[in-house]
Amino acid sequence: MPKTNPGRFFEDFRLGDRLVHATPRTVTTGDAALYTALYGTRFVVQSSDAFAKHIGYPKSPVDDLLVFHIVFGKTVADVSLNAVANLGYAGCRFLSPVYPGDTLSTVSEVIGLKENSNRKTGVVYVRSVGTNQHGDEVLDYVRWVMVRKRDEAAPAPPEHVPALPKALEPDQLGDACPLIDPEAWDTALSGQRHRLSDYVAGEGIDHVDGMTVEEAEHMMATRLYQNTAKVHFNQYTEGQGRFGRRLIYGGHVISIARALSFNGLANCFQIAAINGGRHVAPLFAGDTVFAWSQILAVEELPGRDDVGALRIRTVATKDRPCAEYPLKAGDDYDPAVILDLDYWALIPR
Amino acid sequence: MPKTNPGRFFEDFRLGDRLVHATPRTVTTGDAALYTALYGTRFVVQSSDAFAKHIGYPKSPVDDLLVFHIVFGKTVADVSLNAVANLGYAGCRFLSPVYPGDTLSTVSEVIGLKENSNRKTGVVYVRSVGTNQHGDEVLDYVRWVMVRKRDEAAPAPPEHVPALPKALEPDQLGDACPLIDPEAWDTALSGQRHRLSDYVAGEGIDHVDGMTVEEAEHMMATRLYQNTAKVHFNQYTEGQGRFGRRLIYGGHVISIARALSFNGLANCFQIAAINGGRHVAPLFAGDTVFAWSQILAVEELPGRDDVGALRIRTVATKDRPCAEYPLKAGDDYDPAVILDLDYWALIPR
Amino acid sequence: MPKTNPGRFFEDFRLGDRLVHATPRTVTTGDAALYTALYGTRFVVQSSDAFAKHIGYPKSPVDDLLVFHIVFGKTVADVSLNAVANLGYAGCRFLSPVYPGDTLSTVSEVIGLKENSNRKTGVVYVRSVGTNQHGDEVLDYVRWVMVRKRDEAAPAPPEHVPALPKALEPDQLGDACPLIDPEAWDTALSGQRHRLSDYVAGEGIDHVDGMTVEEAEHMMATRLYQNTAKVHFNQYTEGQGRFGRRLIYGGHVISIARALSFNGLANCFQIAAINGGRHVAPLFAGDTVFAWSQILAVEELPGRDDVGALRIRTVATKDRPCAEYPLKAGDDYDPAVILDLDYWALIPR
Repeated sequence: MPKTNPGRFFEDFRLGDRLVHATPRTVTTGDAALYTALYGTRFVVQSSDAFAKHIGYPKSPVDDLLVFHIVFGKTVADVSLNAVANLGYAGCRFLSPVYPGDTLSTVSEVIGLKENSNRKTGVVYVRSVGTNQHGDEVLDYVRWVMVRKRDEAAPAPPEHVPALPKALEPDQLGDACPLIDPEAWDTALSGQRHRLSDYVAGEGIDHVDGMTVEEAEHMMATRLYQNTAKVHFNQYTEGQGRFGRRLIYGGHVISIARALSFNGLANCFQIAAINGGRHVAPLFAGDTVFAWSQILAVEELPGRDDVGALRIRTVATKDRPCAEYPLKAGDDYDPAVILDLDYWALIPR
Repeated sequence: MPKTNPGRFFEDFRLGDRLVHATPRTVTTGDAALYTALYGTRFVVQSSDAFAKHIGYPKSPVDDLLVFHIVFGKTVADVSLNAVANLGYAGCRFLSPVYPGDTLSTVSEVIGLKENSNRKTGVVYVRSVGTNQHGDEVLDYVRWVMVRKRDEAAPAPPEHVPALPKALEPDQLGDACPLIDPEAWDTALSGQRHRLSDYVAGEGIDHVDGMTVEEAEHMMATRLYQNTAKVHFNQYTEGQGRFGRRLIYGGHVISIARALSFNGLANCFQIAAINGGRHVAPLFAGDTVFAWSQILAVEELPGRDDVGALRIRTVATKDRPCAEYPLKAGDDYDPAVILDLDYWALIPR
Repeated sequence: MPKTNPGRFFEDFRLGDRLVHATPRTVTTGDAALYTALYGTRFVVQSSDAFAKHIGYPKSPVDDLLVFHIVFGKTVADVSLNAVANLGYAGCRFLSPVYPGDTLSTVSEVIGLKENSNRKTGVVYVRSVGTNQHGDEVLDYVRWVMVRKRDEAAPAPPEHVPALPKALEPDQLGDACPLIDPEAWDTALSGQRHRLSDYVAGEGIDHVDGMTVEEAEHMMATRLYQNTAKVHFNQYTEGQGRFGRRLIYGGHVISIARALSFNGLANCFQIAAINGGRHVAPLFAGDTVFAWSQILAVEELPGRDDVGALRIRTVATKDRPCAEYPLKAGDDYDPAVILDLDYWALIPR
């Protein structure tokens, strides 16, 4: 019986399996400082305790994506150590605010299994729930990954593909945001004067700036999240692999794009949900990331007068500025596109 | 009306304009840890709560230069996004100690404008004031930058060049330092036995050590300060520019030189004022920074028996050790020199 | 009398000298976050306040190796600035837990001196003791280094080579670990089900994963520890030296190997003692570190029912996976081996 974790193969998963993941993690202001150093994020609620208190928070919450990355990181050792590809996310909701000092844990349930026709791999669907030390759910999402089989001859489990929402509905948003006082929201301090009603469905925003990524940065980020996926850290092995390079964690790209989006979406202070996301192409150290967004919907939230939600599609590229909103080239993605993300962000009314 | 910030051009500034900058920032022990990791600073008051309490502080204050970088970083989006060059600083005073948990904000006033004769650019003088969450001023300084005009034909504002102090006077120093007990200052723990009276105006000190800079480090530092100047982060664009390289934030050089200066100035525990500074030449990743200092003046502070001040000129070089105090080559700076800084530091009597 | 520290040469040390080192250092959650970002460590007690409290700690302690690196870092300026080589460690015991907010100081005593026959260098043995702000000893260890003489003609001090333990005994272990409740130890959260009695003396464990090191990472780590050894930071000088490269701090390798060892030793939550360690070969940026371990002994601790100790030999390599447990090549070490470490770790019963 080996003492090291070889990771689960496709035939090791059973529908309904409940996976309690190691390692619970207390999030601190140290993590928040690193998050700022890694991405340069400037969203005011997460940056200033004074501002956060002034609008109704007890203090600055932890950045939503930092919560996502930490909750996600724990699942890697049990779900995707033998993954060939991370296929998608759906139904990701932020359910409670997380503050420095809170401890995050993750439990996943296997909600779908489907062997591929080549019998070498299969798709595993898991619903992962992050909770804090009080047992409050802070994050809930589904992801599906293609996982290798240990043995091609192993019998396939019964096929079950779960129904997944294409997008969250407005009435499912906002649980992680306490009631705030939108009158107390100072747009000089937040960096932009536009509120919910200043955005229009369909409008595009070029986030202008570019950010070059270094190996040390993405590895520090991914380790901070205790994400152990081998492809991000091991040049000896990856140098002999498909790309000859360490692959950058897809979540690192999401965080860069989100930080860049401050320029145009400064008041979108909280990610309420991620409807879906696709890592269209890999990012490597030395590449420069740009981003643009399209507003997909502008919605009020049932029962709330303080904040509304923008549904946003954010597209990130590498080595390609986004003034022309690059997206498709014929039926395929433009070769510069690396991320196509669909999410809901809260913004004061 | 674009949602992204194009930055102000020269003709957008008016004398007396008051610019309230985004984003207020709560400084934490996480930021202090990163500051130590980025520069290796060893000044004892900022490193040890126990030492700080023993001499009279409530706990360790945040490093003065970390305060400077955070207060400065906020001004970039409103003042220098379209700057051609950062021309100088003057009259920079540290006015209150900053402790972990304090929130810093910055407001600037336009105090001078002068169009250049080429009509393509002009010089903008701003006085920036950093305050904490109680409204106490923590930092006050003037800087002037050369900013592009959007339209060469735009009429120039009336010319006004403010009178600026060449140096602060001793009676303007020390507000950010509480009264301390110099008898409680343990020179074994602080790393050097020399106090105020052990220094002599005119003496030179080679700080001996060298520090090589990496891209990941200067970008993490500059993002930590939420400084968004494009030239530091975007290799795609800078690779096509004047240097073909990302430029390192000048403040990063100041912090490296200050950390190196511990070897010779270990008891100069606090920067009380920056009289002026010149970034003589750019620094790039891969270069090694060295530094030396000359003591310009040794002064008692009116009404204080606990600490005095050294006026110090610190010169930083790249790829050139400083045993010979490199500074000038004829009328120009020695080509190795990158920084010429004039400041006041407090030291126990 | 120069104001900069030239470091002690061999003839400057006297048996019995007591060296009070600068700079005391308050350890914070910011340091812990950086430690996680630098190594990706996942040991649960140090990661989760909630888990730590549940088993009996007041909150998560600081990682033992972070304590070691900070205590060690202070000794460099006084002991090894003119060292030719760091020869060994012995008798390293962790004596009290360290929590965020504690301030660490180090005092060393010269306990041995032996001039080499070439009269150009000598070996200096020091016992260093780290204490917290209450004066409690937290760490105690001996190291010996080869130090240059300033003047070959200087008379040698009387030779004295201290008797050093080859290994600590089980009854000397565990002081830094409060009594815990082993029933409360949740092996799903800790990442592995194996407890003390599941290990057998002699068994080998390949830790599988590899970690590539970048210049920015090892320099940030070493500065975080305020370790000022020149060879780690100065490419200008090192580029002209023996290796043409910056040398990576040996402690960085120990921390990488320890973090990799989570895969197989996840419940070995605390290092109780380091019996000895040898940095067999240097590590450089760009290299990928792998590790394997052999269990040398499985021991109960006198008077304790909660935890026992594994004596572990951990071997780290560069650019060589460890499935075959690389160690020796004839009488010498295998050329891939960079670290041979012998330590005691605590594990729940």
